[in-house]
Amino acid sequence: MTKIAIVGATGYTGMELVRILSRHPQARLAALTSRQQAGKLYSRVFPGLLQAVDLRITDPDYQAIAHKAEMAFLCLPHSESQDAAAALLKRGLKVIDLSADFRLHSAAVYKKWYGPHRYPALLKQAVYGLPELYRRKIAPARLVANPGCYPSSVILGLAPLAAAGVMEPAVIADSKSGVSGAGRSPQQNLHFSEVNENLRAYQIYGHRHTPEMEQELSAAARKKVRVTFVPHLAPMNRGILSTLYVRLTKKLSLDNLFEIYRGSYQDELFIRLLPAGALPETAQVRGTNFTQIGLSLAPSGREAVITCALDNLVKGAAGAAVQNFNLMQGLPEITALESLPLVP
Amino acid sequence: MTKIAIVGATGYTGMELVRILSRHPQARLAALTSRQQAGKLYSRVFPGLLQAVDLRITDPDYQAIAHKAEMAFLCLPHSESQDAAAALLKRGLKVIDLSADFRLHSAAVYKKWYGPHRYPALLKQAVYGLPELYRRKIAPARLVANPGCYPSSVILGLAPLAAAGVMEPAVIADSKSGVSGAGRSPQQNLHFSEVNENLRAYQIYGHRHTPEMEQELSAAARKKVRVTFVPHLAPMNRGILSTLYVRLTKKLSLDNLFEIYRGSYQDELFIRLLPAGALPETAQVRGTNFTQIGLSLAPSGREAVITCALDNLVKGAAGAAVQNFNLMQGLPEITALESLPLVP
Amino acid sequence: MTKIAIVGATGYTGMELVRILSRHPQARLAALTSRQQAGKLYSRVFPGLLQAVDLRITDPDYQAIAHKAEMAFLCLPHSESQDAAAALLKRGLKVIDLSADFRLHSAAVYKKWYGPHRYPALLKQAVYGLPELYRRKIAPARLVANPGCYPSSVILGLAPLAAAGVMEPAVIADSKSGVSGAGRSPQQNLHFSEVNENLRAYQIYGHRHTPEMEQELSAAARKKVRVTFVPHLAPMNRGILSTLYVRLTKKLSLDNLFEIYRGSYQDELFIRLLPAGALPETAQVRGTNFTQIGLSLAPSGREAVITCALDNLVKGAAGAAVQNFNLMQGLPEITALESLPLVP
Amino acid sequence: MTKIAIVGATGYTGMELVRILSRHPQARLAALTSRQQAGKLYSRVFPGLLQAVDLRITDPDYQAIAHKAEMAFLCLPHSESQDAAAALLKRGLKVIDLSADFRLHSAAVYKKWYGPHRYPALLKQAVYGLPELYRRKIAPARLVANPGCYPSSVILGLAPLAAAGVMEPAVIADSKSGVSGAGRSPQQNLHFSEVNENLRAYQIYGHRHTPEMEQELSAAARKKVRVTFVPHLAPMNRGILSTLYVRLTKKLSLDNLFEIYRGSYQDELFIRLLPAGALPETAQVRGTNFTQIGLSLAPSGREAVITCALDNLVKGAAGAAVQNFNLMQGLPEITALESLPLVP
Repeated sequence: MTKIAIVGATGYTGMELVRILSRHPQARLAALTSRQQAGKLYSRVFPGLLQAVDLRITDPDYQAIAHKAEMAFLCLPHSESQDAAAALLKRGLKVIDLSADFRLHSAAVYKKWYGPHRYPALLKQAVYGLPELYRRKIAPARLVANPGCYPSSVILGLAPLAAAGVMEPAVIADSKSGVSGAGRSPQQNLHFSEVNENLRAYQIYGHRHTPEMEQELSAAARKKVRVTFVPHLAPMNRGILSTLYVRLTKKLSLDNLFEIYRGSYQDELFIRLLPAGALPETAQVRGTNFTQIGLSLAPSGREAVITCALDNLVKGAAGAAVQNFNLMQGLPEITALESLPLVP
Repeated sequence: MTKIAIVGATGYTGMELVRILSRHPQARLAALTSRQQAGKLYSRVFPGLLQAVDLRITDPDYQAIAHKAEMAFLCLPHSESQDAAAALLKRGLKVIDLSADFRLHSAAVYKKWYGPHRYPALLKQAVYGLPELYRRKIAPARLVANPGCYPSSVILGLAPLAAAGVMEPAVIADSKSGVSGAGRSPQQNLHFSEVNENLRAYQIYGHRHTPEMEQELSAAARKKVRVTFVPHLAPMNRGILSTLYVRLTKKLSLDNLFEIYRGSYQDELFIRLLPAGALPETAQVRGTNFTQIGLSLAPSGREAVITCALDNLVKGAAGAAVQNFNLMQGLPEITALESLPLVP
Repeated sequence: MTKIAIVGATGYTGMELVRILSRHPQARLAALTSRQQAGKLYSRVFPGLLQAVDLRITDPDYQAIAHKAEMAFLCLPHSESQDAAAALLKRGLKVIDLSADFRLHSAAVYKKWYGPHRYPALLKQAVYGLPELYRRKIAPARLVANPGCYPSSVILGLAPLAAAGVMEPAVIADSKSGVSGAGRSPQQNLHFSEVNENLRAYQIYGHRHTPEMEQELSAAARKKVRVTFVPHLAPMNRGILSTLYVRLTKKLSLDNLFEIYRGSYQDELFIRLLPAGALPETAQVRGTNFTQIGLSLAPSGREAVITCALDNLVKGAAGAAVQNFNLMQGLPEITALESLPLVP
Repeated sequence: MTKIAIVGATGYTGMELVRILSRHPQARLAALTSRQQAGKLYSRVFPGLLQAVDLRITDPDYQAIAHKAEMAFLCLPHSESQDAAAALLKRGLKVIDLSADFRLHSAAVYKKWYGPHRYPALLKQAVYGLPELYRRKIAPARLVANPGCYPSSVILGLAPLAAAGVMEPAVIADSKSGVSGAGRSPQQNLHFSEVNENLRAYQIYGHRHTPEMEQELSAAARKKVRVTFVPHLAPMNRGILSTLYVRLTKKLSLDNLFEIYRGSYQDELFIRLLPAGALPETAQVRGTNFTQIGLSLAPSGREAVITCALDNLVKGAAGAAVQNFNLMQGLPEITALESLPLVP
């Protein structure tokens, strides 16, 4: 039984971690922190947990957290996570960070997109927490950088092609996300009536998840991969669908394409490669840690469209974090992640 | 380990039963039937269950079902359930019927709302499957009539007041339901664009769930209770919120009101009585077997508004059925029903 | 051609007024004010008006407004409207106030629900701007208090019964509103993911629109009417559906009921009394100034359920205000309000 | 005043035509036909038009239509339109066809995607009804093929680049559509609960709108253009957003890019080129005939992402048809199309 602290427990990612971990047989929630909501019962913030989770929210005091917990999940804004991770690692906790602060290996790239990094040594030590690619490194890690939601869908969708060496190094990722991916803070452009019955692209050529995708796809391809990434906000709570456009370096058959993906994913518990002709739907992974992948090949055999769906709050955030936690604690990866999709 | 048949497994209620029971530690799905979809893999109908549920759908052949299963859940249209229940009971299975066919004790009332009943003897034998009211009768029953979704919300919301003898016998139930309550069959008025950004009442003074509410509230009150019931279709997938208007036979304080409800529900696992001032939200019970109840008292102390939220597919259908199954098998009521709400 | 100022032009009501009035053949938008957005082009706030409305937003300086405009529409928070109305009336403008500041005739009632009123004399002078009831008083008025959105649906739904003297004086109004009725300011509980796939009641026995309903229904009934009003937030942008439960003082036939409503509304341009058996839908009035009313009578003939649908931003706010403007300017009431519903 | 027949008036496109044309100062609705609904009042099908449109629906008898109308709008399924157009043209009516039957110039291409064409001569005679490209040909035409909704968004988004000769001839169109684009007929996969809180791609490499896009972009580019088109279904009623990925044949500056689009569209009434940095939203064109276009250039200057939003039922169907009607009748193009967006 591992004692857990969730730092920043009142945003959507924190709430999802509480939901999952409160049913985890080998985890015990020991501290839930939030600067703004400290002092309140957690079930005041999330009434659906009344009688299920009756912890009181505390201030994020690292000393106090270190007394109570062995493992911390950080759900903090970018940059704030850096200090929290450093403070908690120093006090002996293992850390799974759900911000972008430790995802990029290069301090220079981090600086370009987020500003200066104050702990470049930790940056080197952090393991990128995508179990399907880095399972062996995650297990012994003390600091795991949980992937971004968009990057998870793009990297899982394209890594097999990149690794197989058949993908032209410039790819297009057109991603559509539910609104919970933008966080829980009230904002004009997240007001119900601004989002409902509306669809829009945003941050074309400028979204901070781009370097994370490029880092991992380049690593998989063993050469520089460039991603043209366009995120879109769709009028739904949960779910990401990424439509990925790739040109192939050689002509493939549909069988070839399936072989490449089966080679990568046949033993992966949380990846569902759909049969030919079937396409992913975000609803079919809702509330689960599963990723659905669909493969479509151009008649020419020289282009493919890969579609990839996941739940941004589960496989794209809290679920992946619990999967990492399970790996770090030597537990079966599926522990507490057995949920099947809530359809409809 | 009980072998289960789900008869009518491809509607929303059937799908929800499959989702819940496929994770039930003491149940094994043995037969999933559907006349229209027989022959297909179940995961073709519900792709999110790929690799999780790989049964093939069969025709509803009662002899074959009796060979494979010990317990049957019937998710059939009203009237069709009668024959299925009779056939399966005769072959020794226990039956939980999710249609309205065995909910009304009186064949005359059934006839008025649904047409003639072909098995009046079974009607007498059936137990109304609301565990919070009839737990002791459900445990040994062989035929359980699972409550309707609207009636569950109205009866759970008002039974304590009725039983306490403080409720005037004419009540108003203004209920709002998500669309999954209307079933999965394609219909013009359930087309996405007809429902989205729309709200409407329907079947005022004529909805078939009315006699079920009146039967149970009358039983609780030990006198005839009349319900003015107006259902509404709201643009969401899941959830029922019933707003219940009652006049009181004597002046109460808010404390009195809370005492009455605590008296009825303090040991109920799935009823969450909200603290004074808090009000239920359908999202806070989404995907769960919980019911949230909020109590509001008029300044005069002579009227109350009770609000009651539940997930129509879980506590309003499949979850209640599994709760009944657990009771009938002597298992803890919460088995396979531990899920916390998927928020957002 | 009347020169118009919209004070508080960047909320949803203000935006709707701009949308309607920019196509009004006898109105010219002369000033659009907003404290927070002053200096910006209006089409920056509302990009769909690019090239259609190219005014720049200004600060709400009453002197400047008085130079530019002859008529002011006030879309300000309660209490702020008082000073604005006083200042603009003093400078000779006519005022249509869309806040609650001048809707209640009694300063004592106003004080109870909103706080002290600083202009009790203006309160007496203001005309309640529901044309279907007060057309003759509105035409010559200098200060019109535009009705609240919920009250419009409840008063229009019940006034004929009240006036006919057949309604018991305690009624129940169960209203469901789209989210735009709660305003445009970012708030936690209006965040898309908090509202979508959710339904909830709020402010039971405490909503400020209650005294407005009681004032007008009492006036119509010529005796004190009490309203139990429960508002609900539904996951849609626009639309109010009020389900109104009344007991009748004498037994009526359905024909009697229809005669009562036809008597009140047969010449009303914007009231659509639906044929027997048909029920209103919010989508069928979307974007229009129409109100749909449906009549249902209990089999006993002693109770009725009246359902009433309108678009909260049009007939419940901006459209009614333009209807009032047309009356005040001697124009046909329908001017600029011809739009048919946007379905779907 | 032109007498109008709408053949197939009870689908969403037909309903939208009725909505728009019933307010058109130079059009009079003379016949509304529907095989399934013949005999009913039109306001029974579309209750929001009660007292506004009181025609009775008739069977599509071409002889009868020819007696009543001078101009026919055909809202029929593909292939059915062929006979209707031929029959009505023969009887002297002008025809605007909203199906795909006359959009493709080549009978061979039509055959490949839809089956054999029975009127190849009419195919040659038909004018592709995109006013922004073919205004001069539309004015005198007797048979206009109204563009598809997806193609409108893709062609309007890319035609300026194609015409300027700076676009590589293989482009990617990732389009997201509201559900009304899929028609009004009840279907399992258009059921509210299957679409809401869901997002999916469909018909990758196989959607019938592809050849229409390729025909028009090739014509604009004066060389063969290939479109990789992936449509997506988004949980909303109306709106298409197309995200268009193009590689450029030479390095451009953002100014160059804007000059190209301004050159094409500066005098276009219904095209709103957004300022640099702004991006289209479907809500900002809701209910209107406007198209919003946003331009984004890669830092390299060698790639661009063009985003294009329109209302699929207006500019993507009925609105464009009325714009064509206005051209054909010598009326100002904006007649009856003045509506500003319904926001929110």
